[in-house]
Amino acid sequence: MSLLVVGSIALDSVQTPFGSNADALGGSAVFFSCAASILHPVQVVGVVGEDYPEEALVRLAERGMDLRGVERAEGESFRWKGKYSYDLQNRETLETRLGVFAAFDPRIPEEFRDARYVFLGNIDPELQLRVLDQIHQPRLVACDTMNYWIHSKRDALLELLERIDVLLVNDAEARELSGDWNVYRAARWIVEAGPSTVVVKQGVYGAVLYESDHLFYIPAFPLEEVFDPTGAGDAFAGGFMSHLARTDDLSPDNLRRAVVYGSAMGSFAVERFSIDRFNEVGPAEVTARVREFAELVRFDIQPEGDQIAATQSARGRDS
Amino acid sequence: MSLLVVGSIALDSVQTPFGSNADALGGSAVFFSCAASILHPVQVVGVVGEDYPEEALVRLAERGMDLRGVERAEGESFRWKGKYSYDLQNRETLETRLGVFAAFDPRIPEEFRDARYVFLGNIDPELQLRVLDQIHQPRLVACDTMNYWIHSKRDALLELLERIDVLLVNDAEARELSGDWNVYRAARWIVEAGPSTVVVKQGVYGAVLYESDHLFYIPAFPLEEVFDPTGAGDAFAGGFMSHLARTDDLSPDNLRRAVVYGSAMGSFAVERFSIDRFNEVGPAEVTARVREFAELVRFDIQPEGDQIAATQSARGRDS
Repeated sequence: MSLLVVGSIALDSVQTPFGSNADALGGSAVFFSCAASILHPVQVVGVVGEDYPEEALVRLAERGMDLRGVERAEGESFRWKGKYSYDLQNRETLETRLGVFAAFDPRIPEEFRDARYVFLGNIDPELQLRVLDQIHQPRLVACDTMNYWIHSKRDALLELLERIDVLLVNDAEARELSGDWNVYRAARWIVEAGPSTVVVKQGVYGAVLYESDHLFYIPAFPLEEVFDPTGAGDAFAGGFMSHLARTDDLSPDNLRRAVVYGSAMGSFAVERFSIDRFNEVGPAEVTARVREFAELVRFDIQPEGDQIAATQSARGRDS
Repeated sequence: MSLLVVGSIALDSVQTPFGSNADALGGSAVFFSCAASILHPVQVVGVVGEDYPEEALVRLAERGMDLRGVERAEGESFRWKGKYSYDLQNRETLETRLGVFAAFDPRIPEEFRDARYVFLGNIDPELQLRVLDQIHQPRLVACDTMNYWIHSKRDALLELLERIDVLLVNDAEARELSGDWNVYRAARWIVEAGPSTVVVKQGVYGAVLYESDHLFYIPAFPLEEVFDPTGAGDAFAGGFMSHLARTDDLSPDNLRRAVVYGSAMGSFAVERFSIDRFNEVGPAEVTARVREFAELVRFDIQPEGDQIAATQSARGRDS
């Protein structure tokens, strides 16, 4: 089943306590696709400037990305510069230069318009709506957003929510959007606003899959060394969507699995700068990490009704 | 197997966004025992003042607590007054009046000294050490501590760590103790300092069970309404220890189950003020909540090596 992503293609400069890089591959469409393409081919729609390295595009294409939707426009590529705190829990944006991204108006190539699985990366919700207008009959549309749009384009975002199936956001975004600090009430609010499914990512703590009658929680993969959190959310979305696209199964149990694939991809993303970790990860590593998740949360319920009953009758006795 | 707790017996006055109470039952030994006694009898060692209500002690005894280790001393009972932030994530101590707790020097009654499972609630580590000196041959000793002791009594605490089996702390305490902000490295540090097992509680995010070669993570129970977080950590410890005491099984799988029982008890504790929720909870409710935890984290790994392999060969093709 064809999988389409629309999002940013950026050059990131990141400072972490462990080092820094400059003009490395980044952007929501790139992190998404690098993760997703391990499991399933991806159609990419985005824009790069004249300065975006041609060889980078070649390498991305070699991963299984169809880049016919990537436009090269006059001007500079989107650049983001950020700095993380000592514990990587907070980041400060040092510089944002939108470049060609400022005038980005996604045109979906004719050959992509039959996409069945669509991920709308974090861009202006008005553009996300215009993308949807160009897709013929998607089976599942998922989208991301950010606090900036929640405040500046709330009406467009609410309209978008009525047209999508899955919202993937982090906990701060879920709170801002709903106006409720409790993450489960916030998720309920979002589901009532449109999408049948919400995935709330909670960074180092894990992710919640929320549907009106169904809840799943997976912890984040336990890492002693986190290197660069940039792109973890988009890599998560890439794992989530590519698992759904390749299985074409939207059952609750398969949505749970998709969240685990998302968590696995997010955990890989943070282990190196930029998309570097995905140079080392193939399907075998992904499967191994999914199995580690299963072991991480595994526990068996003993048949112990009798034991508790026996304890009850002993209540109040000396033991 | 006999289960012993040593800790505080307090009268708490708590302000939350949802209301407040005054001089309600609290303290680590009380929260621990109210949770634990649902599953297993508990021997309690602590001290109360002349003003502690006799009828409260009668009601605690009716729950299956052996209070022969509770001393009534001259003076006022330990009182704590606190106020929670709007989202219950932070609390401010408004007043602490130690009263008879200031001179507390736990004497373990002769009939309790054969206890096999021992929980040392959060008190001065020098007192925790003196308790251990009085126990003949415990099978498992678990303990809690807090930032105040980590700073003021570090040497005694490090000596204690060498003599216990399980440390149950929250993430802030694990970080303070180890000097490492990464919770998994912090847990490793603690295990290298003595106990074979560390449980790091992460509040609304869940809890980690850490052993040198073994890791388990259970999310917190998803609650849309949290009423009063006071005592959740001690109730957690009560569930954890009572499950171990009643099963007398220290296998890794049973330790995992104990963490789930702890999480269940912690989730009950926060649903009402003080110990009130435990008036409504029996073994059936505990079992039901443990099953809900199992459903919360359940996912199955499909046999899908073939699917990924097939995808791989399709890499780079249009889909």
